[in-house]
Amino acid sequence: MSLFAGTFARGGTAATVSDDAWFRALLAVEAALARAAARAGLVPATAADAVTAACADPGRLDLATVVARAADAGNPVPPLVRALREAVGPDAARAVHVAATSQDVLDTALVLLARNAIAVLDADLAAAAESAAGLAAAHRDDVLIGRTLMQQALPTTFGLKAAGWTAGLDGARTRLAEVVASLPVQYGGAVGTLAGSAVAVRDALAAELGLESTALPWHTVRLPVADLAGALGAAAGVVATVAVDVVLLAQAEVAEVAEVSDTRGGSSAMPHKNNPVAAISARACARRAPGLVGTLFAAMEQEHERAAGAWHAEWPTLTGLLVTVGSAASWLAESLASLRVDVPRMAATAAAAAEAIPAAAGLDVGEAGAQVDAALADHRRLTEGDA
Amino acid sequence: MSLFAGTFARGGTAATVSDDAWFRALLAVEAALARAAARAGLVPATAADAVTAACADPGRLDLATVVARAADAGNPVPPLVRALREAVGPDAARAVHVAATSQDVLDTALVLLARNAIAVLDADLAAAAESAAGLAAAHRDDVLIGRTLMQQALPTTFGLKAAGWTAGLDGARTRLAEVVASLPVQYGGAVGTLAGSAVAVRDALAAELGLESTALPWHTVRLPVADLAGALGAAAGVVATVAVDVVLLAQAEVAEVAEVSDTRGGSSAMPHKNNPVAAISARACARRAPGLVGTLFAAMEQEHERAAGAWHAEWPTLTGLLVTVGSAASWLAESLASLRVDVPRMAATAAAAAEAIPAAAGLDVGEAGAQVDAALADHRRLTEGDA
Amino acid sequence: MSLFAGTFARGGTAATVSDDAWFRALLAVEAALARAAARAGLVPATAADAVTAACADPGRLDLATVVARAADAGNPVPPLVRALREAVGPDAARAVHVAATSQDVLDTALVLLARNAIAVLDADLAAAAESAAGLAAAHRDDVLIGRTLMQQALPTTFGLKAAGWTAGLDGARTRLAEVVASLPVQYGGAVGTLAGSAVAVRDALAAELGLESTALPWHTVRLPVADLAGALGAAAGVVATVAVDVVLLAQAEVAEVAEVSDTRGGSSAMPHKNNPVAAISARACARRAPGLVGTLFAAMEQEHERAAGAWHAEWPTLTGLLVTVGSAASWLAESLASLRVDVPRMAATAAAAAEAIPAAAGLDVGEAGAQVDAALADHRRLTEGDA
Amino acid sequence: MSLFAGTFARGGTAATVSDDAWFRALLAVEAALARAAARAGLVPATAADAVTAACADPGRLDLATVVARAADAGNPVPPLVRALREAVGPDAARAVHVAATSQDVLDTALVLLARNAIAVLDADLAAAAESAAGLAAAHRDDVLIGRTLMQQALPTTFGLKAAGWTAGLDGARTRLAEVVASLPVQYGGAVGTLAGSAVAVRDALAAELGLESTALPWHTVRLPVADLAGALGAAAGVVATVAVDVVLLAQAEVAEVAEVSDTRGGSSAMPHKNNPVAAISARACARRAPGLVGTLFAAMEQEHERAAGAWHAEWPTLTGLLVTVGSAASWLAESLASLRVDVPRMAATAAAAAEAIPAAAGLDVGEAGAQVDAALADHRRLTEGDA
Repeated sequence: MSLFAGTFARGGTAATVSDDAWFRALLAVEAALARAAARAGLVPATAADAVTAACADPGRLDLATVVARAADAGNPVPPLVRALREAVGPDAARAVHVAATSQDVLDTALVLLARNAIAVLDADLAAAAESAAGLAAAHRDDVLIGRTLMQQALPTTFGLKAAGWTAGLDGARTRLAEVVASLPVQYGGAVGTLAGSAVAVRDALAAELGLESTALPWHTVRLPVADLAGALGAAAGVVATVAVDVVLLAQAEVAEVAEVSDTRGGSSAMPHKNNPVAAISARACARRAPGLVGTLFAAMEQEHERAAGAWHAEWPTLTGLLVTVGSAASWLAESLASLRVDVPRMAATAAAAAEAIPAAAGLDVGEAGAQVDAALADHRRLTEGDA
Repeated sequence: MSLFAGTFARGGTAATVSDDAWFRALLAVEAALARAAARAGLVPATAADAVTAACADPGRLDLATVVARAADAGNPVPPLVRALREAVGPDAARAVHVAATSQDVLDTALVLLARNAIAVLDADLAAAAESAAGLAAAHRDDVLIGRTLMQQALPTTFGLKAAGWTAGLDGARTRLAEVVASLPVQYGGAVGTLAGSAVAVRDALAAELGLESTALPWHTVRLPVADLAGALGAAAGVVATVAVDVVLLAQAEVAEVAEVSDTRGGSSAMPHKNNPVAAISARACARRAPGLVGTLFAAMEQEHERAAGAWHAEWPTLTGLLVTVGSAASWLAESLASLRVDVPRMAATAAAAAEAIPAAAGLDVGEAGAQVDAALADHRRLTEGDA
Repeated sequence: MSLFAGTFARGGTAATVSDDAWFRALLAVEAALARAAARAGLVPATAADAVTAACADPGRLDLATVVARAADAGNPVPPLVRALREAVGPDAARAVHVAATSQDVLDTALVLLARNAIAVLDADLAAAAESAAGLAAAHRDDVLIGRTLMQQALPTTFGLKAAGWTAGLDGARTRLAEVVASLPVQYGGAVGTLAGSAVAVRDALAAELGLESTALPWHTVRLPVADLAGALGAAAGVVATVAVDVVLLAQAEVAEVAEVSDTRGGSSAMPHKNNPVAAISARACARRAPGLVGTLFAAMEQEHERAAGAWHAEWPTLTGLLVTVGSAASWLAESLASLRVDVPRMAATAAAAAEAIPAAAGLDVGEAGAQVDAALADHRRLTEGDA
Repeated sequence: MSLFAGTFARGGTAATVSDDAWFRALLAVEAALARAAARAGLVPATAADAVTAACADPGRLDLATVVARAADAGNPVPPLVRALREAVGPDAARAVHVAATSQDVLDTALVLLARNAIAVLDADLAAAAESAAGLAAAHRDDVLIGRTLMQQALPTTFGLKAAGWTAGLDGARTRLAEVVASLPVQYGGAVGTLAGSAVAVRDALAAELGLESTALPWHTVRLPVADLAGALGAAAGVVATVAVDVVLLAQAEVAEVAEVSDTRGGSSAMPHKNNPVAAISARACARRAPGLVGTLFAAMEQEHERAAGAWHAEWPTLTGLLVTVGSAASWLAESLASLRVDVPRMAATAAAAAEAIPAAAGLDVGEAGAQVDAALADHRRLTEGDA
C-alpha cells in the first residue's frame, strides 16, 4: 500500500521484489537455462540465443495473461513458459524450460531476488554501520553513564556504545554475505530426478547465474530459505537493538541524543516535541521480522517431492521479510546519520551518577578508547572487503 | 504484488484495505468526529457539514501530498488533517480533528477497515460453510474410513466429516462476529485525557460509526487488536484444517474427493495430474496467519501514552492478516464448491478396511446421521441469524 | 528447571500443570466418564463407583508404568486406562473409559487443567488490577507528564495512567472468564462417531465436569485451544504493557516510581541501583507468550480424525503458555503492590515540561479525575462479579 | 514434566540443560575465569586453584540458597558468587568473579550448555543421517512414484528420496557445527567497558573454555543467540520434512514404509493399526521450534548495556528449543532406524501410475542412481570429518 510505503517500504528493497523484478528474475532464469542447455548440447545455441533475446525484453511477452493465469496454475511459471514459447516461435520453443519444473525456475528466481534485495539492504546496513563507526570515533572518549536493566549503573563511553552498534551491524552484514555467497541454484525436473545431462545443465545454470550447485535439488529441503530467514532475522534484531537505544537516549529526561531533521519528527500540536521518527520507524519495521521468520521456519515441513502449500507460503513471506528488514535498515541509516549527541549533557549525567558509585568502579577512559580502536579496526577490515 | 495477488489476495478482502479504503476510512472518522463535535455543541453544525462534504469527496483533497508526508510525520493523519483543513477553508477548519490525536483517527479507521474486511471474508467463510453443510447433508449416510494419526482407524461417514467442517467454520464465524460487535471507537486526545466534553464527543463518535464506547481510550492497551488477531488466527486455523483434509483425501492413493474445475489444477507436463489447487492455496494463505498473529500479540507491549514502534507495526500486520485470512477463506469456498466426492471409492476403502476391524467397532450409520442432523440444525440456526 | 522456576514459574500456576495435576485431571475425567456412563445406563452404578474410588486415589495406581509407556503409546491415556482397569478389577473394568478414545480423555483433562490454571493466574491478575485501581484512586489528581512516542507530550494524571492499567487487566480477565465459561468437553470415540448413547454420555460427562457440550467432537477443529491461546496471549500483552511502563517510569532519569522491596532489586556491586526486578521479570515472562500463541495457532491444521503431531504439540505448548502467563501475572502483582509513586518528582517534571507546552493544552485535573472515577466504577462492577 | 518427557524430552538433550548442568556450566565459567585472571596476573594462582577446586565440587556449595535467591536477584549468578566466595574463604574470594558481571557468567554458561546440548542432538542427527544414507544405498535403484502437491507425478527412486533426506540432515549438521565453532565468550564487566587487563582475561577465558573471543562484549548485540536459533530452527525444519514424508508414506493407502517396533505404535482398540509413533513424535517436537525461534529473534531488541526482560526471556526459550530439537532428532533417528520399506508395493504403485504418464517422462534408473552416489559421497565426506 503506497500510503504506508514511506514507513514500511523505505529505501530501495521494495523495488527489488516488485512484479517487474519478479518477471525479470524469472526470465533471467529461463534465459540462463536455455544457454545452459545449449552448453550441454541439448538445444542449438541459436535457439538459446532466441530465448535469451525474448527474456531480455519482457515487454514483448503477454505478461497480463501470465498474471491472470498464475493463480489457477498454482504458480506463475506455467503461463510464463507458455508466453515465452509463443514469443520465440516453434523452432526455439524447445529451448525454453528444458527439462525443468516450475519450482526449479521459481526457486532460482526467488534466490536471485533475495540476492538483489540483500545487496540493496546491505548498502543501508553499511551506511548505518559507517555512521555508527563515525560516532564511535568522534565520541571515543566521551563519558556516558552505562545503564543496565534500565537503571544507571557504571560509566562507559559513547564511543564504546557506538562501537558496539558498529560491531552488531557489521556482524549482521557478515552473516548476510555468507548466506548470499552460498545460495544455490534449484534444478531437478518434475520430481527432482535430474537425469544425466541434467547434472551438466544444473552446473552450467549455476555458473550462468553465479549461484552454487548442490548434489541434489532442495525442492523440499529448505535450508537455503532457512538461511535467509535466519540472517534477515538477525539483521532485524541488530537494527532494533540500536534503534531502541536511540529512542531511549532521546527521551526528554535523558536527552543525550536527538535526531536532527528538517522534515521529520515535528508535532504541530506540540511544538516542543521532537520525535525520533527514524529510529521509531526502524523499530516498527524490525518488529515485523520475527513473525515472518517463524513462518518461514514453520514452512520447512514440506511434503514428498513438492509441498502442497508450505512452498507457496514462502513467496510473500520471504519477500515481505526482505522489504521490512530493508526498510528497517534504511530508517536506521537515516537515524544515525541525523544523530546529534549532547556531550555536555552526557557528562553532567555521568558526573551526577558518579557520586553514588563506588570509587573502585571508576572508568579508565583511555582503556575504553583502546577497545573502541580495536573494534573500529575490525570494522575497517570488513569495509575494506566491501571495496 | 499483482503477480501473486491471485493466490494471496484472493477474493474481496484486499480491496477493503487498499489505499483508497484507508483514505475513505480515515475521512469517515474525521467526518463523524466533526458531526460528533457539533452534536456536543463544540463546533457549528454548518462547519461539521462542510467537513462531512469534504470527506465524502477524497478526490478534492491533495492526497498525493498526504502520501508524500505520511512517513516523515510518523503516520498519515497529520498531513491528512492539514489537507482537510485547507479543503474546507478557515471557517470550517476548526471543526476538523476536534481535540483528537492522530492515533484516535488512525485506530478508529483501522477498526472500521477491519470491520469491512471481516464482512467480506465472512461471506467467503459462510459460502464455505454452506458448501460443507451441503456435503454433510448429501453424504449423511455415506461410509468413510476414519483416519487417526494418518492411519485407517474405524468407519465414520463423510456426512460427519463435512458436518465437522461446517461446525468449525461456523465457530470461526461466531468468534469473528463477537469481536466485530465489540470493536470500540478510539478517542482520547493527545495523551488520552479526554477532557469533559470529550466524553460526549467520544460517545457521539461511537454512535455515528456504530462502534462501542469505552470508559478510557485504549491507546496502549491493545485488547481490540488482540481480539481481532485471535479471531482471525482461529479462522485461519479452521480453514487450514478443512483444506488439509481435502488435500489428503485427494491423494491419488485415496481419491475420495477431487476438485473439479475447468481452469484450475491441470499440468501440461503431466496430464494425469489434477492438483487440488484451491485447497492447496487455502493452506498456503492460512499458513501465513500464525506468524502475523504472533507479531500482533508481541506488539501489545506499548510504552506510556503512545508506543514508539509497536503501534505502527500493527498497521501492515493486521491488514496483511485480514488479506491472507480472507484469501484463505475465498480459496476454501472455491474448493468446497468444486468438490466431487467419490462415494463408491469411499465405500470400497471402508469395506476393505472393515475386514481388519473388530466386529464391536462397527458403525451405526443411522446414529451417525442423527449427529449430522444435530450439527446441521446448529448451522441453520446460525445462518438464519445471517438473514 | 528449578533454578529458574522462581523467575519463570512464579506464583501458583506451575503447580496446576504438574505431573500430579495431570494425573488428577486425567483420572477426574475417567471417573466422571464412568459416572456418566452409569447415568446413561451403560454400566452399573457400582462399577462406576469403583472407578471413581480408584481415580480418587492415584497412589494406588502404577503410575510409574504409565510414565514409562506413555511415549511409546503416543500419549499417556492407553497405559493409564490399563493401570486403572487393573486397579478396579475385572468386574468394574468395563466401566473404565467407556466408548472413549485417548483424545477424549486427554483433551478434556487439558481443558480442566487450563480452567484450574486460569483460576490461579486470574487471582494474580485480579491482585494486580486491585493494586492498579488503588493507585488510580490514590493518585486520582496527581499530574504526570504524558509521554507519546517516548517523548514528553501533554500533561495527564497518574490516576488516569493507573486507571488505564486497571482497565487493561480487567479486560484481560473478562476475556479469560469468557473462554473458561465456554470450554467444552471432548467426547467422540475413536473417530468421533458418537454412537447413540454416546450423546447422553457426552452430555452427562459435561455436566459432571461443569463443561459445555458441543454437537460434534472437536478432535481436529481446535477452536477451544485457539480461544485459550488468544485470551492468554492478550493477558500477557496487557501485563507487558503495564510492566514496561513501570520499567520506564523507574529509570533514574525519570524516577517517578520505584519498586520498594527488602529482598529484590539490590546490586552488591552497585549499591545505588534499585532494579525493578518484578516488572522486569513480568516482561521476561510475558515475552515468551507470543511465540507459544503462534505455535498453537499453527497447530490448528490437524489431519483427518486425529492429527499426527500437531495435536501432541499442543500439550507442552499450552501448559507452558499457562505457566509463563501465570508467572507474568504473579510478578506484576508483586510489582504493583510494591510500587512507590514519587508525587513531587512527577509534579516537578510536569511543571518543567509545561513551560514548553501551548497554554491551550492545559489539563483540567477535575475532568481527568471524572474519567478515573468512571473507569474505577467499571472495575468495581467487575470485581463485585468476583465475589 | 516427566509424564510427557518421553515424548518431548526424548534422547539426551534434556539432561544437558538440567539444573545440574546449569550449575556445572556456571561453575565451569567461574573456575575458568579465576584461572584466566591468574594467567593475567590479577590474582594468585593458588587462589585460582582454590576456586577451581570449589567449582569442581558443586556438592560443597549451598546451592539451595542459590536457587532460593536467584529470582529476587534477577538471575542466579549473584547468589552463586556469594556461595562460592564463602566456600573458598576470604583469601581466595578475590579470585572469584574477577571484574565480571552476572551476564558475563550467565551468557558464557549458556553458550557452554548450547555447545554440550548440540553435541548430543548432533549425534542423533548423525544417526538419522546414517540411517537415511543406508536407506539410500539399499534402495538406490528401487522405483517410487514421485509426488508433487500431494499428487502422483513422475517416477523417482526411493534411493533419491532417502539421499535427499541425508543431504538435508547433513546440511543441518553443518550449520550447527559452524555455529558451535563460532560461539564466543562473554566478558565485559558491569557495563561492558573491559578495562585494560580485562582484554587479556577475556582472551584467556576464551582459551580456557575453547570459545571464540570478540573485540567487544555482546551483552545487547545477540548475534550468537540468533545464530543458535537459526541453526536449531533449520534442524527442526529438516527433521519435520523427513518425518512428514514417513507419515505420508506410512498411510494405509500408500503403505510404502512402516515403522517396525515391538513397543511402539500398536493400538489395543484397533489391532490393525500401526501408528508411526516415532515420526509423529518427531513432527510434534519439531513443530514447537518455530515459535521459540521467533521469540529469540524478537528478544534481540535489548536496551542499553543490559536488557530489562528480553535477555532473561532467552534462557528458558533457548534451552527449551535445544530440548525440543534434540527430542525431534532423537525420534527421527528411531523412526529411520526402524523403517521397513515395501519395495514390491512401491514398484506396483509406480507401475500403475506409469500407465497414465507420457512415455517421454520415463525414468532412467541408472542415472538416478548416479545422483544417489554423488549425494552419498558428499555424506561420507562429512561423516569422515566426524571421526
